[in-house]
Amino acid sequence: MSTLPALRVGILGLGTVGGGTISVLRRNADAISRRAGRQIEVVAASARDIKKPRNLDLSGITLCQNPADLVKDPNVDVVVELIGGTTPAKELVIAALQHGKHVVTANKALIALHGSEIFEVALEAQTIVAFEATVAGGIPVIKAVREGLAANRIGWLAGIINGTCNFILSAMSDADQEFETVLKEAQELGYAEADPSFDIDGIDAAHKLTIIAAIAFGVPLQFESIYIEGIRYVSRTDVDYAARLGYRIKHLAMARQTTSGIELRVHPTLVPNNQLLANVDGVMNAIMINGDAAGPTLFYGAGAGAEPTASAVVADLVDVARDFGVDSGSRMPPLAFQASQQSELPILPMDSIETAYYLRLHVLNQAGVMADVTRVLGAGGISIEAILQQESEPGDPIVPIIILVHPVLEQAMNQALEEIAGLSQVYEPVVKIRMDSLA
Amino acid sequence: MSTLPALRVGILGLGTVGGGTISVLRRNADAISRRAGRQIEVVAASARDIKKPRNLDLSGITLCQNPADLVKDPNVDVVVELIGGTTPAKELVIAALQHGKHVVTANKALIALHGSEIFEVALEAQTIVAFEATVAGGIPVIKAVREGLAANRIGWLAGIINGTCNFILSAMSDADQEFETVLKEAQELGYAEADPSFDIDGIDAAHKLTIIAAIAFGVPLQFESIYIEGIRYVSRTDVDYAARLGYRIKHLAMARQTTSGIELRVHPTLVPNNQLLANVDGVMNAIMINGDAAGPTLFYGAGAGAEPTASAVVADLVDVARDFGVDSGSRMPPLAFQASQQSELPILPMDSIETAYYLRLHVLNQAGVMADVTRVLGAGGISIEAILQQESEPGDPIVPIIILVHPVLEQAMNQALEEIAGLSQVYEPVVKIRMDSLA
Repeated sequence: MSTLPALRVGILGLGTVGGGTISVLRRNADAISRRAGRQIEVVAASARDIKKPRNLDLSGITLCQNPADLVKDPNVDVVVELIGGTTPAKELVIAALQHGKHVVTANKALIALHGSEIFEVALEAQTIVAFEATVAGGIPVIKAVREGLAANRIGWLAGIINGTCNFILSAMSDADQEFETVLKEAQELGYAEADPSFDIDGIDAAHKLTIIAAIAFGVPLQFESIYIEGIRYVSRTDVDYAARLGYRIKHLAMARQTTSGIELRVHPTLVPNNQLLANVDGVMNAIMINGDAAGPTLFYGAGAGAEPTASAVVADLVDVARDFGVDSGSRMPPLAFQASQQSELPILPMDSIETAYYLRLHVLNQAGVMADVTRVLGAGGISIEAILQQESEPGDPIVPIIILVHPVLEQAMNQALEEIAGLSQVYEPVVKIRMDSLA
Repeated sequence: MSTLPALRVGILGLGTVGGGTISVLRRNADAISRRAGRQIEVVAASARDIKKPRNLDLSGITLCQNPADLVKDPNVDVVVELIGGTTPAKELVIAALQHGKHVVTANKALIALHGSEIFEVALEAQTIVAFEATVAGGIPVIKAVREGLAANRIGWLAGIINGTCNFILSAMSDADQEFETVLKEAQELGYAEADPSFDIDGIDAAHKLTIIAAIAFGVPLQFESIYIEGIRYVSRTDVDYAARLGYRIKHLAMARQTTSGIELRVHPTLVPNNQLLANVDGVMNAIMINGDAAGPTLFYGAGAGAEPTASAVVADLVDVARDFGVDSGSRMPPLAFQASQQSELPILPMDSIETAYYLRLHVLNQAGVMADVTRVLGAGGISIEAILQQESEPGDPIVPIIILVHPVLEQAMNQALEEIAGLSQVYEPVVKIRMDSLA
């Protein structure tokens, strides 16, 4: 066994992930220390209620009520921040770094919103900030992009990185149920919060996209520039039509590098059935990354949960154990590029992004309507890939039409849809969902 | 930009991957050096015929005819070995290490067969040996297992890691063609060698499995203990029956840790359609890894080709650039565990491994045959999951029967099959293909 001193860990927060981290470190202590080259030992932890009974072996761990004490504890080498949210997490992480501690965190909001400031403090203090658990839980995708694909210019990436959204969309498709029904089921199973908006409105996916895109493209963290749509407007009807046309609707986080800038967007997307991403179901996560040398790669696994998240936290601890004594100048910067070397490519506004679309219109069941609709599309330079016109009962006054269009500027699409919505034979709602072939 | 001196690279071999490595390093020089913290510069290369015209910018690269000169060139920090085979690659790599060079190699046979000796020399010389390109080409799966999943006890892994086999099996399924026809097509497309045995008999996959299993389970490299079957005996008939039963036949490399030892095996396997691995087609590779903390993860991408392989080679160079000045005791050992800390779990003989099976029998079209077959299976303690008896034309003297059986010891299965083959109403061939639910 190695004769290096143990890496002493202090954990902020004894919730699900905190408990999982302690369990994994204890259960696999032998294999972990063989890989890390030294023991990794939890010596301290803080929790709001340290007397609360926990189904957890806390022997040898000093519990403290006040996290501010832990972050300056001279017996702690690394602080693992697992309390979530940005207050007081941000102050605690910064204090830890300023006290010369390395920091491992699973807090996506913290890194997405305050990462630049935190990394600057760490650079100054010559300490490490590691955050593999912030994107896609147990999938080591940050390491893959930052190191495994370091040779590549990344063209684009597309990810299913919110398990709640994927569970809901998968169940709508497989169990043929409406959004509201499935959401209730997800809440009962613990896959969705009582207030689910953070997940189903796309905020959580956008936090993760902020982080992985910064690493992939060497741009600063800029959550505020991401275009975000959630899944509330996706109906079972659209899931069904998509299936009939050979697609599945997934909530994708997408980033793409073009000559004019970077696209950063989170929205429901029709993905062809034969793509692996279309077949990622339930709460599972996956990210597809297209590098100019490696070509398309895909990374799949559990995106949340106590032990998958702990897997990522502990992997970071092993990295810290290895990098501990290393001259800080030799370490990989947290976002792969130092702030001074980041790209200045702008984030593109949604209007100037091109995608393909799925459209669902409700029109009067009479001759000439289709001619009017296609005339508007044609005048806008929008080319049609497929039309699905449901066979209607003779008496139906209104019928649905599904139109798939080839990639076109969002702006042109929106203009055309406004005009179409204004046609007297067209009724609300006009549904528009983006499509991507991922090729 | 960093003020660290450039990492000076010497490349052995200017074939496809050598050319790809130089192209990628030049094309993405800016992003690579930002990630590596220093420039990575090819300063020397050796090739059998240095005067051969190449579609490659070799400016600034000293070409030498004799690779033995390159491995002791004082201007070279890292030797990239891309000549393949074990002679003279092994001697060159060892000489390079002894001259204090770090080594990056894409040579799977070399590492699988002589890795232990090579790592010992490197440990002595305090130099790095990196070999991400040896397993699954552009997929950074060695890094994922060694570092990304470092927290986990790996229960099992299953991979499609030979593109030739996967191309052939995919085409047999999609184009409904026989093995020989598809093999010829693969040869024309450059996906199979003129002598394809190395790939289609499973040797190449076994080399890769040797390496990834050593990293996953902390066991020594032991190619000679792997059970190997190729794909020559897989017929279109079996591919079709498998499809009808909801499976696809894939050539899998599998490793599993049990309480009694490690399973290491390469063979055709029926995989359920709804598994992502079943949907990995053409020449693409994928590896599924089941860790006790992370759960199932999957890594997908191009397993061969100039640029995907170069992507892995260059990622290793970036790691070397980062680890260059690091005290060698802090570096992750090449197989994640130092030789002295490796597990002594035995590799299990095939006879004592349990799997499920697909069986295809040809029997006399008369009453009582099925009773005889199922009696033999029952007597052997073999439990039947499903039977598919093709409707026969009244005149057919011989009919096929497909039987799927639940997991049972290989030994028991073979005994029962011997007895079944001895029944007077059963005709050759009796086909046996293993099945795995990958759950």
